[in-house]
Amino acid sequence: MTDTMTAEHPLDRTLGLEPLGVGLYRGATTPDYWNMAGPFGGTTAATLLKAVLDHPERRGRPVALTVNFCAALAQGGFEVAVRLMRDGRSTQHWNVEMIQGETVASTASVVAGAERETWNHAVASPPEIPPARDLPIMSAEGRNAWLQRYEFRYARGEPMRGNGSSPEQPGPALSQAWVRDLPARPLDYLALAALSDTFVVKILNVRGDIPPVATVSLSTYFMADEAALARQGSRPLATTSDARVFKHGFNDQSAELWSDDGQLLAVSHQVVWFKG
Amino acid sequence: MTDTMTAEHPLDRTLGLEPLGVGLYRGATTPDYWNMAGPFGGTTAATLLKAVLDHPERRGRPVALTVNFCAALAQGGFEVAVRLMRDGRSTQHWNVEMIQGETVASTASVVAGAERETWNHAVASPPEIPPARDLPIMSAEGRNAWLQRYEFRYARGEPMRGNGSSPEQPGPALSQAWVRDLPARPLDYLALAALSDTFVVKILNVRGDIPPVATVSLSTYFMADEAALARQGSRPLATTSDARVFKHGFNDQSAELWSDDGQLLAVSHQVVWFKG
Repeated sequence: MTDTMTAEHPLDRTLGLEPLGVGLYRGATTPDYWNMAGPFGGTTAATLLKAVLDHPERRGRPVALTVNFCAALAQGGFEVAVRLMRDGRSTQHWNVEMIQGETVASTASVVAGAERETWNHAVASPPEIPPARDLPIMSAEGRNAWLQRYEFRYARGEPMRGNGSSPEQPGPALSQAWVRDLPARPLDYLALAALSDTFVVKILNVRGDIPPVATVSLSTYFMADEAALARQGSRPLATTSDARVFKHGFNDQSAELWSDDGQLLAVSHQVVWFKG
Repeated sequence: MTDTMTAEHPLDRTLGLEPLGVGLYRGATTPDYWNMAGPFGGTTAATLLKAVLDHPERRGRPVALTVNFCAALAQGGFEVAVRLMRDGRSTQHWNVEMIQGETVASTASVVAGAERETWNHAVASPPEIPPARDLPIMSAEGRNAWLQRYEFRYARGEPMRGNGSSPEQPGPALSQAWVRDLPARPLDYLALAALSDTFVVKILNVRGDIPPVATVSLSTYFMADEAALARQGSRPLATTSDARVFKHGFNDQSAELWSDDGQLLAVSHQVVWFKG
């Protein structure tokens, strides 16, 4: 060890994949982003994406990532297998599986597309919230480890017990917040994929409590090119997240992640299972 | 042929799958839902879903369907292969591939979940539009066949050339419309999956023209149980669809499909490739 050695960021440590052959990797859980009963889904999503980005045949940037969370991942090792389903002119389509023992823990599909400039037009606007520096950092002390790996500054809808909402008197689902990695880390697609799952399950906002819950499927569309991520650096992203309906044991939720100069970097949607 | 014979609905004809073995099917394109350069993506999505629903090990209703459109499907036959990735207590996870010749034309993941009653809460509201009977039916004469397989009654944002929008002066992306199968057909998950892709690419709304476009990835979350679909029957669904951003050759779009008694039946998101 030397003074100039920089410690590995917990995100990079958690996403570490050892190649076992072309399209096959070994990884292991870390305690850094531990959630209630397994790793944070955002780091699982980023791990599956990384397996594609590390593949020698991958061309272009990620455009779409869908992750299906099939089974709880236990502490320990796992393998990730990647397959190129279609290598088209404009897009590549990849399938990914994360396997632990005999169990498929998660699957993913990734679309990669060439970077290019085209006509562009923004329909949506970033959330109107105060500057990050004017909002307090949420205390994550004593909460699940993954919440301590992000700096949250909620402008509205901080997810917390005792917020005055209840199953009988549901509150709003909408949250708006500045979010970034903690410690701060320059933004890339891996960090953005993980950030896309930092919108705490909306049932906590709406009911003020959390029954057993699990994200079932998560789709993130990356609207930013590499240059936009580089411009953003390690500064907080402006985010908004909301849900439409809780019914028959499932709810949807949607989120937007904006740069601090008003560019939509990613949109993310998920369907969440809940009990009772 | 007898007088009492009922003709097969074009949707059912198009979704016809001949079993070749467990989890393996043969299908063929039909002209009924033809689009610009291949079949309508909605019927491809419904075909992939049907392959799962027809599988003897499938339990529960569809919850999530993600379809990745990998390559154009040519007129003719194709095979569909289904694999159960994980058979969990609450959910099943399925992967599907549609193959034509040597090419993977599309892939899908399907999550199925048990029907159950839980605490429920609607955050979102249906679009506020006039009753279907008070709105004119859009003429699809001379347009792609698939547009003629649906009855569209737009309250706002009818997708059409010459709507006054242009690349230099983009118009709104939002559309609100009543939509149903034509001829009318009782709603089920297959029809709902296809209906989830009836929101004409938003670039037409925004620019008043259509460059070459293709949906890359489509995710639909089914929030309705069988009973809600049965209640809806063959009456029109209230729908709303919008986009957030067009950039680097891709745009997102999101849609909601509501029953006429105000229940959110499905939400659907997609990312679309466009040229130039």
